[in-house]
Amino acid sequence: MSHLSSLSSLFVTGIELDIDRGVLVGGERIERRLSDLRDCFVDSAAYDRALSHDDPLVYSVSSLEPGSGAGDLHLGLGVLMPGRVGQEFFLTKGHYHSWREAGEFYIGLRGVGGLLLEDEQGTRRFVGLTAGQVVYVPGSTAHRSVNTGDEAFVYLGVYPAQAGHDYAAIAADNFAQVVLAGPDGEPEVRDRAVMKRQRGE
Amino acid sequence: MSHLSSLSSLFVTGIELDIDRGVLVGGERIERRLSDLRDCFVDSAAYDRALSHDDPLVYSVSSLEPGSGAGDLHLGLGVLMPGRVGQEFFLTKGHYHSWREAGEFYIGLRGVGGLLLEDEQGTRRFVGLTAGQVVYVPGSTAHRSVNTGDEAFVYLGVYPAQAGHDYAAIAADNFAQVVLAGPDGEPEVRDRAVMKRQRGE
Repeated sequence: MSHLSSLSSLFVTGIELDIDRGVLVGGERIERRLSDLRDCFVDSAAYDRALSHDDPLVYSVSSLEPGSGAGDLHLGLGVLMPGRVGQEFFLTKGHYHSWREAGEFYIGLRGVGGLLLEDEQGTRRFVGLTAGQVVYVPGSTAHRSVNTGDEAFVYLGVYPAQAGHDYAAIAADNFAQVVLAGPDGEPEVRDRAVMKRQRGE
Repeated sequence: MSHLSSLSSLFVTGIELDIDRGVLVGGERIERRLSDLRDCFVDSAAYDRALSHDDPLVYSVSSLEPGSGAGDLHLGLGVLMPGRVGQEFFLTKGHYHSWREAGEFYIGLRGVGGLLLEDEQGTRRFVGLTAGQVVYVPGSTAHRSVNTGDEAFVYLGVYPAQAGHDYAAIAADNFAQVVLAGPDGEPEVRDRAVMKRQRGE
């Protein structure tokens, strides 16, 4: 893009965040339904049962990609619906950035949720994110959003244009941690491997 | 920063955006008063008069700089107070990024204002920004915030860690456009050179 065309483009005019409709006006929107999330949830029997009844929307991401140069940034508006598969809260697939050094700012706009974070050295944690909070995901850190509330969890992500998405590194083993609803509905973070052993898997 | 220390650092925990206080909790805050903005406003007599009475806070920026690598991002929370010098709305100094390719997303959180944008090829425009809107400032584009309302104008900026601030390229000639309050208080965008000619400067 030349300087002239980029400064004249639609991206510098007011981009509307329509939080109620869950879209970035002018953005490219993708949807992920329950059937797109096979092998993401720890309780595969509960997953199959849920899917035999219905294939609900789990999340959508509306993206704006105004440029693709080394210094450009992209923006995503995520809308993660409330719900569970068994006791596990609805989640996104999660990914590393293909360009491992790329970080990302998450900005909470509505609802209650958090991010499962882990790196290739085995560090892992769940970090809460609600409206008016910001989380920085450093480079080399896989990230998955989780909705722990009972309304849509809406957030912005800003990341380098050249970050890219690497889903494969996570899909092989899945995230090490699982966020479940405890007896009072509050989130409880569990170890996936321990849960699998307890289930005799 | 090693992967381990960055994932363990405070930056991945919920960073609070305190919009009422105008701070990023845990961030580094700078303040700019009227006396810091000499030569920014078109009406220098009005500037001198205003400064002889008082030296009010014009804006503050709270910054979070969680990393400095090629893929890292920085975050700034800007709070630009309402006010005028003569008929010209309060503004920030404005800058190019030292690394010209670096873009920036602005996210409106509160109040009513906009961004004066211009590039080194002579393209220029004023783009409105209010709560719930986003503006992308492409690379090689100088940007100055302007508060055209009567309450604080609050916004986030996200930019590459390596962007840097180049104030000098703007300070030499100032922005080509000026945002004034018209007779009804609504913003009017004028050409600085034309105004200076009309004033006999």
